[in-house]
Amino acid sequence: MKVYFDNNATTPLHPEVKKEMTAAMEMYGNPSSMHAYGREAKANVEDARQRVASFINADDREIVFVGSGSEANNTVLSLFVCASAQCIPGTTARGTIITTKIEHPCVLETSECLMHRGVNVKFLDVDRYGRVDLDQLKDMLNDDIGLVSVMMANNEIGTMQDIAAITNMVHECGAFMHTDAVQAVGKVPVDVRALGVDFLTMSAHKIYGPKGVGALYVKQGTPYCPLIRGGHQERGRRAGTENTLGILGLGKAVEMRALEMHDEHDRLLGLKELLRKGIEDKIDDIHFNGHPTESLAGTLNVSFPGAEGESILLYLDLEGIAVSTGSACASGSLDPSHVLLATGVDAERAHGSIRISLGRESTTQHVQHMLNVLPGVIERIRNMSTAYIKGGTHAASR
Amino acid sequence: MKVYFDNNATTPLHPEVKKEMTAAMEMYGNPSSMHAYGREAKANVEDARQRVASFINADDREIVFVGSGSEANNTVLSLFVCASAQCIPGTTARGTIITTKIEHPCVLETSECLMHRGVNVKFLDVDRYGRVDLDQLKDMLNDDIGLVSVMMANNEIGTMQDIAAITNMVHECGAFMHTDAVQAVGKVPVDVRALGVDFLTMSAHKIYGPKGVGALYVKQGTPYCPLIRGGHQERGRRAGTENTLGILGLGKAVEMRALEMHDEHDRLLGLKELLRKGIEDKIDDIHFNGHPTESLAGTLNVSFPGAEGESILLYLDLEGIAVSTGSACASGSLDPSHVLLATGVDAERAHGSIRISLGRESTTQHVQHMLNVLPGVIERIRNMSTAYIKGGTHAASR
Ligand SMILES: Cc1ncc(COP(=O)(O)O)c(C=O)c1O
Ligand SMILES: Cc1ncc(COP(=O)(O)O)c(C=O)c1O
Repeated sequence: MKVYFDNNATTPLHPEVKKEMTAAMEMYGNPSSMHAYGREAKANVEDARQRVASFINADDREIVFVGSGSEANNTVLSLFVCASAQCIPGTTARGTIITTKIEHPCVLETSECLMHRGVNVKFLDVDRYGRVDLDQLKDMLNDDIGLVSVMMANNEIGTMQDIAAITNMVHECGAFMHTDAVQAVGKVPVDVRALGVDFLTMSAHKIYGPKGVGALYVKQGTPYCPLIRGGHQERGRRAGTENTLGILGLGKAVEMRALEMHDEHDRLLGLKELLRKGIEDKIDDIHFNGHPTESLAGTLNVSFPGAEGESILLYLDLEGIAVSTGSACASGSLDPSHVLLATGVDAERAHGSIRISLGRESTTQHVQHMLNVLPGVIERIRNMSTAYIKGGTHAASR
Repeated sequence: MKVYFDNNATTPLHPEVKKEMTAAMEMYGNPSSMHAYGREAKANVEDARQRVASFINADDREIVFVGSGSEANNTVLSLFVCASAQCIPGTTARGTIITTKIEHPCVLETSECLMHRGVNVKFLDVDRYGRVDLDQLKDMLNDDIGLVSVMMANNEIGTMQDIAAITNMVHECGAFMHTDAVQAVGKVPVDVRALGVDFLTMSAHKIYGPKGVGALYVKQGTPYCPLIRGGHQERGRRAGTENTLGILGLGKAVEMRALEMHDEHDRLLGLKELLRKGIEDKIDDIHFNGHPTESLAGTLNVSFPGAEGESILLYLDLEGIAVSTGSACASGSLDPSHVLLATGVDAERAHGSIRISLGRESTTQHVQHMLNVLPGVIERIRNMSTAYIKGGTHAASR
């Protein structure tokens, strides 16, 4: 049996998305062209924009199609440097960004780059469940803060933040609010008006759409500066010939999410609970990471002291089960997860963690298969680990 | 009969590319994932990289997949700002960029933005055929020049530059050389070693691949700084989950180009000559723009004084023929083509120009149909234009 439990890394295309994209392969006009071929492409792109907009309760003029969630996040943060370079008059007075310690690398690394360029960036702590400390945020907010960027749902542990409450605080201080909602959109209801955010990032491939396309919501009237310039595409907000196939795929993906996500949410919660209980029953000395309730329905992050996450991943892979050790973007690196470390987990336990992320194709059979295979895998790895003392916590010698 | 003569704006997918992409829709792993799904995706992406690299005689480590030709061009120019911000030590001393007046808007607008940030940008003139003035370049080159960016083939008039000669001059002065080869790759042989360039831009959708994916060649050892950060994709040179479908499409597109481009080049030259002669024979008072020989085989840019390019486009569109008034990216704007103006064409003649760009699906029948339709269209428009004096040049009153 093949079991794909890595839906936070990426998802298979929805069958309806495949159909839409296959049909769209016949449509080849450039949406910028004035002739019939171009107008057809343009109409289809605008239709997709409308679908994406209404899915998050935005206006279609507020949606900018981009090449990935990473690009959207980079755009919002770089906008800030652009602003300090006077591209946007009037926003230069506030020279500081606030973000969190558990953001995706595309936010953290861009922040580091901004710091090299003289922008001040402050990083919020999180509690042991991965929730942002609102009191700390309150203390940090002042007249110097230009932008606050807090992710809506964490990709590694699934913990969700109260973005509406954070946005309120941020707006009270006169700063702009961005949320990376790549892991939230299509899994929980996201309403940009209710949240109040100024910028919101989404990505197609996390919700059964194609890789290499995303969307950035930019609230009307918000200062903006393109990351990629030249050409009037996306109303001058993102140059480059539109990824028409990808955009149509994203449009179809959100349409299908609107139909399926509600029922799926409850179904995934049930599957996750089955998995959680099964792991708890069958394996000693485990720790679940992330928030017990304010969390994505399909995400389960668990630590097995004495077993390296990467070994677990590889042994499961041999059995046809795909999981992750955290962010796919950080895989291949030997650093322990920055997210788990930020929640206070020590490096050893962080190293012994895997992320199991369920999706629309996940079934009870998949969970049962996992529960049949995982205990043996953990036992085998722990037995090989001389330093691990069964039933105890990790050995000090490692 | 439907005639698509706008292949410089974008091209239909090659049937083999469609097949490749349709098959690839079943492959959904994230290339960054360590499990079997991820490794399969990774292997396919690396295979495409190898195809792209060998097509332009590069090493596969020198290819960075990006979201468009525009992104690639923005990356190279922004690298320069990044360098001045000390991201790349040692490259800050040279504060000036040289480019040309006929570049694509994604180069020109990025240059303007750089100027706002304090970078010095100089623009080379071109002669009446659109060729760069090498003497002027020689005069401009000095110790302050960090980067020179000259497009290999112009999208509006098809004129090609002697990139190898330019690169020689640029390297002699110690600067880096970039060429936007979006319109050249896949139409004429492009060998990065023979050209000697440090950076080269290409885009899939101009050569029967999908829109929304391109590649940037970065010569090994050249200073580099990502435009989109975070995540180790593309060896840390471009963050964001890879557009696997698009990348595979690009890989297949170049593979097919390698097989087809040589014969097609001669065939298109023949068709263009047929078209040129026919227009010359059947329509009075016309001017061909661009270089008579150093030009893309499929590109014909022609001015019809007394007839607005946009009107010609729309009347031809009614007859099922798709052409363009220049760059698709600038369509919708009322400014005359900056490329034609740079070649010394006056605004009136520039307004009366269309670009006819042939491609692999173009046939003699298409050319004949065009030759049957175009004279009537031009006559009708000229007759409506009160200011146009038949057989003369444009009237002063317009
Ligand atoms: C010469 C040239 N450079 C760059 C581009 C931009 O490439 P893309 O459409 O992939 O953004 C184009 C086409 O639009 C072009 O013709
Ligand atoms: C929370 C979060 N933000 C951003 C991204 C980046 O999105 P993309 O893969 O489209 O670049 C991801 C996924 O990789 C993510 O999980």
